[in-house]
Parts: sequence; structure tokens; C-alpha cells
Amino acid sequence: MIDDAEFIRGKVPMTKQEIRALTVAKARLGVDSVVADVGAGTGSISIEAALCAVRGKIFAIERNADAIELIRRNVEKFSVGNVTILHKEAPDGLEALPMLDAAIVGGSGGRLHDILDALTSRLKVGSRLVVNALTVQTTAQALDYFRARGWTYDAVCVQITRLESVGLYDMARALNPVTIITAGKNF
Amino acid sequence: MIDDAEFIRGKVPMTKQEIRALTVAKARLGVDSVVADVGAGTGSISIEAALCAVRGKIFAIERNADAIELIRRNVEKFSVGNVTILHKEAPDGLEALPMLDAAIVGGSGGRLHDILDALTSRLKVGSRLVVNALTVQTTAQALDYFRARGWTYDAVCVQITRLESVGLYDMARALNPVTIITAGKNF
Amino acid sequence: MIDDAEFIRGKVPMTKQEIRALTVAKARLGVDSVVADVGAGTGSISIEAALCAVRGKIFAIERNADAIELIRRNVEKFSVGNVTILHKEAPDGLEALPMLDAAIVGGSGGRLHDILDALTSRLKVGSRLVVNALTVQTTAQALDYFRARGWTYDAVCVQITRLESVGLYDMARALNPVTIITAGKNF
Amino acid sequence: MIDDAEFIRGKVPMTKQEIRALTVAKARLGVDSVVADVGAGTGSISIEAALCAVRGKIFAIERNADAIELIRRNVEKFSVGNVTILHKEAPDGLEALPMLDAAIVGGSGGRLHDILDALTSRLKVGSRLVVNALTVQTTAQALDYFRARGWTYDAVCVQITRLESVGLYDMARALNPVTIITAGKNF
Repeated sequence: MIDDAEFIRGKVPMTKQEIRALTVAKARLGVDSVVADVGAGTGSISIEAALCAVRGKIFAIERNADAIELIRRNVEKFSVGNVTILHKEAPDGLEALPMLDAAIVGGSGGRLHDILDALTSRLKVGSRLVVNALTVQTTAQALDYFRARGWTYDAVCVQITRLESVGLYDMARALNPVTIITAGKNF
Repeated sequence: MIDDAEFIRGKVPMTKQEIRALTVAKARLGVDSVVADVGAGTGSISIEAALCAVRGKIFAIERNADAIELIRRNVEKFSVGNVTILHKEAPDGLEALPMLDAAIVGGSGGRLHDILDALTSRLKVGSRLVVNALTVQTTAQALDYFRARGWTYDAVCVQITRLESVGLYDMARALNPVTIITAGKNF
Repeated sequence: MIDDAEFIRGKVPMTKQEIRALTVAKARLGVDSVVADVGAGTGSISIEAALCAVRGKIFAIERNADAIELIRRNVEKFSVGNVTILHKEAPDGLEALPMLDAAIVGGSGGRLHDILDALTSRLKVGSRLVVNALTVQTTAQALDYFRARGWTYDAVCVQITRLESVGLYDMARALNPVTIITAGKNF
Repeated sequence: MIDDAEFIRGKVPMTKQEIRALTVAKARLGVDSVVADVGAGTGSISIEAALCAVRGKIFAIERNADAIELIRRNVEKFSVGNVTILHKEAPDGLEALPMLDAAIVGGSGGRLHDILDALTSRLKVGSRLVVNALTVQTTAQALDYFRARGWTYDAVCVQITRLESVGLYDMARALNPVTIITAGKNF
């Protein structure tokens, strides 16, 4: 697991270490996994996934040009050879992906249901779909989607508070909570 | 309960609305309560207390000169006539207070046990002592103090996450958690 | 503020002390407030409101017969004379209420929007409407309602963790989080 | 990552899935890691570690006889061949361990500093020590230990809230927070 400070960041928001670790764990990546990372941002999750699925393949999909540049630089910095960067606004581009073992949605630009529809057709039976939600509405939409279609899902809100050393004290500094919704595709 | 934005703030950290409300509730103030607010900061808790204990008296103790000036301005802004401002570094100044119905410790400058000792001698039987802790160490010290002396206490960590409206979404923004330790003086 | 253990509870879920305190604070009750408590449960919020709005009037609306009996017993135990208990399934019964200074919705039985519609017509200009949500969907529905109608609202998720004394240690025990959505009626 | 329900549990408290995942991530286990799991409880962390460090070795140390039996049964259920179970009350038994790449302390029976002292002498340079704390005092003791000795550490409080599907709603159910303190041994 990489420290947050090691990533090249710019102004693009980055998924913090603990959320990256839980996202990758919930996606149950194996060494051969083929993974889509939709709304890849700085690429921090793609790179963690790439280091885990060392013989697999990661597709980092991102619409923002600045973020695409950051992903490129982070891929280079961490010397991962199994990340393919796609400068697309999802669901555009998803139809051309190979069949996936896992998909991670970190950003959906207001088109979550369309993205989930497009991913569904690319996900293998037994694969996992993980949505990281920062808002009440994205959470509700993801839950609605999975409930309406009868997917099995699990959802957790993760609140991380860092204890920052200040002199002889450790001060509580809260990170913003992220809700991780994980669904298994069994069909 | 006053909105955070209504207080004059400067660079002094301010106790947020929900924490103020719970602090005042835990202190069980009545209209006649005499209250010490130690480490008063911007004075936000003193003013909430003053609006609650309208026929009582609030002593705002603060060591920082900038904060003292902010308390003055906030007292003026909210037109509360029952707040006495003391520019002292606690426990200095506590020995001269009248007998108290409640004491609130929002800041202790590394001298928590001395402050609690000084307050103990000023607190009436049946009064309440509330410590707001931002660090692991202050929390542990307050708990140790009350446990070692056999005080009855209750302690809660309060994590408030604001849902901020951003377009059509409500985004979770965590505030730093505060641990509120409340002890009753029964002797 | 009353300790949780003082209420008569039975099997009906009860709003915990800190949530009651924040709910009453968000509702900005005054001594003369006329208040509706919809989905009153054990009556714990109605009783806190009654002790605050001592010259006002509280209407506790509840559909469950066991809960109604608990409210009756708690009203008697705390000797509050200003609580009117209505055994109704909201929005039924709301149309007959007098004009309100505040409404609190703790339970909505799947009919939140109908209840908010009915309350809207009973709320005075400048009054406040507070919804306590335990689920993602209730939170989303309340936010949608207020956003769609242009109400000013504030929403906070409140996570209380009690530190329970076990021997020489204080163990963190989380309570379930509650999202409090507060809207002001300005029309 | 294993679902909580898959472990054989009995009455011994079990570290929940998300905490297990973060603990293993913070310990930075590799395929060859040699790991001590002190206060192994049900063995859930030992088994996750064993599945990660497939060519390494895990030492599960536990003082409670019922828990030892659970660890045995879980080791059998998950068919992990690289877990050695030690029925000892730490720090007893730690002195006989081989040099470690990581140590995880999930329970310390009130002897945290002695356990950390014993582990220190068994940890390789560059190894990691992870303490999972459920109480304010264990958190404070771990922080004090690492601060006093000049170790680099990171500490996070992790609050997981499960969203449980109930009909058409997803209800927030908080798990108890765990503070994870991770120190690197650089000497």
C-alpha cells in the first residue's frame, strides 16, 4: 500500500490510502485480474490495482485532461506496465473493454446508471463491481440500481480520522467519509 | 442555537454549532446558572451559555490576546450582558471565581489536571464539569482524572459530517471529531 | 437533558440523548413554541421539547399502539402537561393541528413526502422542520424534497460513539448514525 | 478478503472484514512475510495474513483456550498451512519467535508496553508493527510508546457503518471504531 504523499497529485482530488486499500480489497483482485477504473482521477486506485494484479490489466478511464496527465505521470513514477489510460467520458469507451474481473467506479459525472449498464455487459460472471460514493445521491442511486436488478450487494460508509502528531499530542483530523458499495455479478 | 457564520471568528479555531449545542446540553445549564468557560477561544460557547443562563453569569477565561478581542466583539455583537471576560492563563484566575453550577473546559494549554483541580474547589455539589477534547491525550487525561477520583462521568466522541449542497448533490464533509467528557460533582 | 435510562422504553427504538439534544437545538424551540413530533416513538423527543417549550404545546403523533402507551407513561413520569398524544398514522391527523413553530419527523412509515406536504401547510413563516433519518433513502428523499421546493436546508450526519468504562479502560461503542435535515420555512 | 460470516466464531469477538483488510494493508505483508499476530482471537487476521503471505509464516499467539480452539478450526476450514498456533499469554512466547517482517497486536491483556518491548527485539529493520486499539487507553499507550522511542508512526481511527438492506431501505448500522496505530522499525 502506497503512502498518499508518494503520488503526484496536482489539484485533482485523490482517494486516500485507507479507501484505496478497502476498494481494492472489496474488488477481490487476483494477480491475473482485468479491471476497469472509471473516473480514475489521479490514477491512485489504478496503480494500487496494477501492483496487485501484476499479471493482469488495468484500464484507467478518465474524462479530465489534467487528470489524464497525472495518471500518466503516476504510472511512470510507479513503473507499472499494466495500466492502459483511456481519455474518455464514461460510459463512452466502456463498450470496447475486454471482459472484466472487476470494475471500480470512483467518479461518474452524473451518469452512474448508464455507466453501470455499460459495465454490466463487460463484467464476467462472478466478477465484482465497486462504487465509491462521496454524496448521498450517488449512494442512493447505486443502491437503487443493485436492488432493482436483484444483485447481491454490500455497502459500508467508511470514516477515517487521522491522528496527527502535534508536539506531545495526537489531534483527530477527519477525512471525508466515502461509501463503498460492492456488488457481485452472479449472472 | 446560533449559526457558525454569525460569529466573528478571525484565525482562532471555533467550536462548531453541533458541538456547542451538545456541550451546553451536557452542562445542563439553567436560567440562573453560574458557569466558567475555560479556554473560551472565540467565545462561541460562552455566548450560547449566556443566552441559555439569561439570569446567570458566564466567566470566559482565555490566555490568548487575539481571542480575548474576539470574545469582546462577539459579546457585543450578540448583546449579552452576563459574560465576564478574564484574560488569564488557567488555572490562574480560577481561584477568584464564585461558586459554579457548571464548568466547561475547551482548552487547557497542557495543564488539564491543574485546571480540573482548581475548578473542583469552585464547583457546587451537584454541578457539572464538561471537557471538550480534540486529542487522544486530553481525552485520556480527563478520563484518568475522573476515574482516579471516583467521579461519575460519561464520555462521547461526536463526529459531525455536514452534507454540503453542490448542484444536485449533497457531498459529505467531515468535521473533526470532539470527545465530550462530562462529570458530575457529587461531593 | 434527560438520561436515556430515565425513559420507559419497552421494545420501541428510542432516539438517544445526544440526538434528542441536537434535534431540539436544530428546531430552535422557544418557551412558547407549538411543535409537532411525527413518529414520536417512545415520546422522548416530545418530552424534551415539552420541557423546553414550557408555555407551548407539543403534539406527539404515532401510529403504533405500543408506542402510544409508552408515550403516555413517559408523559406521566416526567409530569409534562403540555403534550397532546395523537394515535394516528401521519399524514392523517396533521391537517387538524394548529399552526406550528416547528415540526420534527422521527418516523415516516414510507410516506415522507406526504407528511412533509401536510406539515408545510401547518407551518408558520419562519418555522423550522427537522427530519431525523436512519436510512440512505429517507435522507435522499428529504434532501430532494427541500431542494426541489427551494427551501433553505442544512443537513448533518451525527455519529456518536460512547466511551464505556470497563475496568481501567474506556471502550468505544458506536451508536448508529442519524442524519438530521433541518429546513427553514420562509414563505 | 473473506466475508465475516465465513469464519467460525463462537463467543470470541472478531475483527471485522474492513478492519482486517486495513490491518493487513498497513502491515505491508509480502508473499514471504514472517508475521506475529498477538491476541489472535478467532484467528481471522492470521488467516487473512496467511492467504497473503503464502510462502511466509504466521504465528498466532493467544492466551484464551476457547479462542485457540477457534483458531484451529478456522485454520482447518480455510486450509492454510502456514499458521503456527501458540497458546501463550504474551509477552510469554514472543522471545522464541524467529525474526519478523511484521507484528500485529490485536489484544494485549493490559501488558501492551511489555509486548511491544518483546516484539521490538524480534522485528527486522524495515519491519512494521500494527496495533489495533479498541479503547482510549490502549490508543494512548501505543502512541506514547512510539513517540517516546522516536519511532515513525501513523494512526487512524476507522469507523465503519454498514448499510443494511431492510425492505426498500438501507439502514445505517455502526460498527465499533478501531484505532490502528502503525509504526515502522527503522533501527
